[in-house]
Amino acid sequence: MAAPLTIDCLQYANWSEKIFRQMKNGGVSAVHVTITYHEDFRETVEQMADWNRRFEQFPDLIMPGRTAADVRKAQANGKTAIFFGAQNCSPIEDDIGLVEICHQLGLRFMQLTYNNQSLLATGCYEAEDPGITRMGKQVIKEMNRIGLVVDMSHSADRSTLEAIEISERPIAITHANPASWHPGLRNKSDDILNALAQSGGMLGFSLYPHHLKGKSECTVQDFCEMIARTAEQMGVTQIGIGSDLCQDQPDSVVEWMRVGRWSKEIDYGEGSASNAGFPPQPEWFKDNRDFGNIRKGLTDVGFSKEDVNRIMGENWLAFFETSFGPQSA
Amino acid sequence: MAAPLTIDCLQYANWSEKIFRQMKNGGVSAVHVTITYHEDFRETVEQMADWNRRFEQFPDLIMPGRTAADVRKAQANGKTAIFFGAQNCSPIEDDIGLVEICHQLGLRFMQLTYNNQSLLATGCYEAEDPGITRMGKQVIKEMNRIGLVVDMSHSADRSTLEAIEISERPIAITHANPASWHPGLRNKSDDILNALAQSGGMLGFSLYPHHLKGKSECTVQDFCEMIARTAEQMGVTQIGIGSDLCQDQPDSVVEWMRVGRWSKEIDYGEGSASNAGFPPQPEWFKDNRDFGNIRKGLTDVGFSKEDVNRIMGENWLAFFETSFGPQSA
Repeated sequence: MAAPLTIDCLQYANWSEKIFRQMKNGGVSAVHVTITYHEDFRETVEQMADWNRRFEQFPDLIMPGRTAADVRKAQANGKTAIFFGAQNCSPIEDDIGLVEICHQLGLRFMQLTYNNQSLLATGCYEAEDPGITRMGKQVIKEMNRIGLVVDMSHSADRSTLEAIEISERPIAITHANPASWHPGLRNKSDDILNALAQSGGMLGFSLYPHHLKGKSECTVQDFCEMIARTAEQMGVTQIGIGSDLCQDQPDSVVEWMRVGRWSKEIDYGEGSASNAGFPPQPEWFKDNRDFGNIRKGLTDVGFSKEDVNRIMGENWLAFFETSFGPQSA
Repeated sequence: MAAPLTIDCLQYANWSEKIFRQMKNGGVSAVHVTITYHEDFRETVEQMADWNRRFEQFPDLIMPGRTAADVRKAQANGKTAIFFGAQNCSPIEDDIGLVEICHQLGLRFMQLTYNNQSLLATGCYEAEDPGITRMGKQVIKEMNRIGLVVDMSHSADRSTLEAIEISERPIAITHANPASWHPGLRNKSDDILNALAQSGGMLGFSLYPHHLKGKSECTVQDFCEMIARTAEQMGVTQIGIGSDLCQDQPDSVVEWMRVGRWSKEIDYGEGSASNAGFPPQPEWFKDNRDFGNIRKGLTDVGFSKEDVNRIMGENWLAFFETSFGPQSA
């Protein structure tokens, strides 16, 4: 009997053979990997070319993920299908034609904004959120047409609610938790979670310590109880994992994420001057071999085997099935 | 019974609905279209995005061509499959990673050079030809691995012979004629044609007047007799059509082809100061509805029906079948 499906809908590791082997050993059949924070189109293509080289170098461990069927193919062959995502709209610059070009190159998720105001929408660190822009409306329509998922993980509330409303296809918040559990700026209000669920969208639960109650000290039980409450609120079919695992990254990378090229001053984001680097992961989720701890935690808080499988992978797979192809007429 | 297959392995028209309808009316199931003369990667992507918009706008007339199977699909549905080609290596800039990226975006042919020295090889207008460069050898290997066809239509003799030798997969000269028939600088020596044929490569016969004996006055009989002699020389399976049709283009476009951004002085290429623009097409081949004239001409000079079908499309299709996918181990 095949091992149950595991999908992680957000990671940004310092990719290496070691990590790909951990994915294999952890039975992770698909990962949505970030390829862009602030990179423009040409720089994003460079990231894609780097991935092409990894696919060539490690064909027994990883494969390009383009469709839901690729997840099953990876699962059957003990590999991990890699799906590309951008955490910002910087790859499309000011050119709507790049939406389809990026999709042709494998992009399957794109955040409309990363923390700041973008050409499309407002990020969660801005003081004012005027909602989806003129270009934003055009780009959402184009993303819908082609099958590029709108991701609002780092967006502000009004923009997020408007994106849910405007998008003709369900959107995703790939990596965030309920603000009612832990009121981080990146976690999401009940209004957003309810609207997301009602529109058929997906929430991926984050394991980034700044998104966790108790941060690095959060227990697996506390995390899984939060999932149980969210399942009651959103429905057990609209939730999955989006760990936001940033394994083996030097702290210079979190600085790039936060500041990119947009500021000459340091912005500490969710961190602080005294705690500027990546926070330590909870000891029960350090790398791709630890998804079993979450499975066990979900079982322990009372989820059925079937629901555990949904949360750990089947829900994302169902979402992939309807999200990555052209919009039906 | 389906109409016989027609493939044109080089055109660079001023694309419009009118021309796509002429392709349909002419029964042309596949066209290799040029998207690059001197454009860099980003500019080439812009051309691809323009094509994406045409595919969206005219779904009943054209479709993206990626594999040989797409040709049969287009033929069955009365459409034209559009295959992208670059007449220069400018789209990959100095970055070997862009070979695969361009292939992912649909590029299926790439000339190693266009008239001048490039990073990869020497063009046919240079005084000296030192052969395939260091980067050229690496890029040919990568093109072979991925399934991007080496095209040497505008290359100098030594570089062309070396490309045939170095490439592990058959190459193409998509648009040129034998120099023994008309000694234009762009037409090819017997040494090249023989080496091309022996390696399993393909020659596409050009209908660009500067490549024709008698130029715009060339008769269809003369053209087809030249094909008959070349068939004897190269074998009837190694030849096809690559018309080099540049329909509806303003003369500014031929200037871009010839001079790009590489010279402040005008270079007239195959033209002259007194005849700088596009030359008029022979009256028997003005647009995509005229392939029937060539079919009839080939029959008239004695080709069997089967051989006419080979030359007009089946040979290119067989070449597409083995050329566009990954190299077998």
